[in-house]
Amino acid sequence: MLIIGEKINTTKKSINNAVEAKDSELIRNEAINQLEAGANIIDVNTGTRIKSEVADMEWLVNTIQGAVDCRLCIDSPDPAVLKAGLALCKQKPMVNSITGEKDRIDAIMPMVKGAGASVVALTMDEKGMPTTGEDRRRIAVKIIEMIQKYNISMDDIYFDALIQPVGSNPEQGLAVLDGIRLIRQSFPEAHIICGLSNISYGLPERKLLNRTFLPMAMNAGLDSAIMDPTDKMLMAAVLASSALLAQDEYCLNYISSWRQGKLVP
Amino acid sequence: MLIIGEKINTTKKSINNAVEAKDSELIRNEAINQLEAGANIIDVNTGTRIKSEVADMEWLVNTIQGAVDCRLCIDSPDPAVLKAGLALCKQKPMVNSITGEKDRIDAIMPMVKGAGASVVALTMDEKGMPTTGEDRRRIAVKIIEMIQKYNISMDDIYFDALIQPVGSNPEQGLAVLDGIRLIRQSFPEAHIICGLSNISYGLPERKLLNRTFLPMAMNAGLDSAIMDPTDKMLMAAVLASSALLAQDEYCLNYISSWRQGKLVP
Repeated sequence: MLIIGEKINTTKKSINNAVEAKDSELIRNEAINQLEAGANIIDVNTGTRIKSEVADMEWLVNTIQGAVDCRLCIDSPDPAVLKAGLALCKQKPMVNSITGEKDRIDAIMPMVKGAGASVVALTMDEKGMPTTGEDRRRIAVKIIEMIQKYNISMDDIYFDALIQPVGSNPEQGLAVLDGIRLIRQSFPEAHIICGLSNISYGLPERKLLNRTFLPMAMNAGLDSAIMDPTDKMLMAAVLASSALLAQDEYCLNYISSWRQGKLVP
Repeated sequence: MLIIGEKINTTKKSINNAVEAKDSELIRNEAINQLEAGANIIDVNTGTRIKSEVADMEWLVNTIQGAVDCRLCIDSPDPAVLKAGLALCKQKPMVNSITGEKDRIDAIMPMVKGAGASVVALTMDEKGMPTTGEDRRRIAVKIIEMIQKYNISMDDIYFDALIQPVGSNPEQGLAVLDGIRLIRQSFPEAHIICGLSNISYGLPERKLLNRTFLPMAMNAGLDSAIMDPTDKMLMAAVLASSALLAQDEYCLNYISSWRQGKLVP
């Protein structure tokens, strides 16, 4: 499992305040804590700061890279912000995100290619969010056709099966799992990612729902998640799922994680 | 999910001692605690007490039924013990178990039919334990053919997909999940059960593995489990899985369980 740490996101009040105040220590600590907890990539999302997003993204990327040496996921709806963030990345970046919309692909894919980046491809298009699992696969197929000319390796594509809250639509848990399975069948060499905590939006004990959904999604074919790596029981669920799904040879990582005290709260 | 409480089993020292000493209070409390924790059926397993198993099963069934009014799962390799237990059951019993072995079917199915019982059918046969998911389906198909003449409703058949420890064979987690999926496809009206804790045998933090495997198995089609209902985080995983898999209308049971404090340790 590739873990993308979600915590540096200006939708969170503490992060927004830190960006506003240029509190580099708080940002550095958020990055360090996520990496120490097991994140492989740090997501950087400035989407709420419309008026100053380019400058804020640049400040965040530089601040994080001043403290840690890691991959970043540059996460914005605005191509200009993605471009600014990508230009500063010292390691292979991830871009979040393209969709099945042609304008967005035309704006973003040249910079993905130019930066040698990985890219998150949301399985939605100009018609909006997908409903069924088959909708998700159909859009994934369409995206692959649309980006073919950029000649990106399948290993750099992360399909996001678009988790939607079961609290507002109870069938969406099953639909996402179906979508993951179908995309995995169609594109065995691509990656499948999700924004995990969306599943529990609006319900109590969200962490319980997140760490219960993750094993199902991993069994369906998910191999990457944008999530909170500092949620210890969620990370324990990742380790346990890897052992249960034969992704952890002889359960050695599970056992060594147990010795390090990582499996208990 | 139908929960069969596993705790009254003479492989556990405290239960064996209680049976030995005819400590009816301990047995009654084990039954009451499991039902209060959410068990639907109480398993009664005397398999280790070869010398006195018939008398011990009769004593246990009478002792439990003297304290609580519930369904029992009469669990023994010995047909004579099953017969003795079944004769005393006040509510519709469950019989654990038949296999794909003809002798065992011929000995046990007439009493299942006579008692109007449900039956657990282990997907193993005279050749031993299954390896792949397809082995499990093949044996399930064979069992259905062999028991056809008893004219048992599909709703009374609980296929056990035979969980084997990932600690000794890492591929068995995936094989069981495949088996559950294949049996669910072939027999959509039958039930699928498992002895959950077998998955974690020999590994540390067994409860973490058990409650991580259960959501995957429920997504595959499991609708019943022999497990420890007094493991609060395992029961929380059942409740969360039901909400995530659209088995809990509008998540109402999940939310009311949260109000009752059932979702936290």
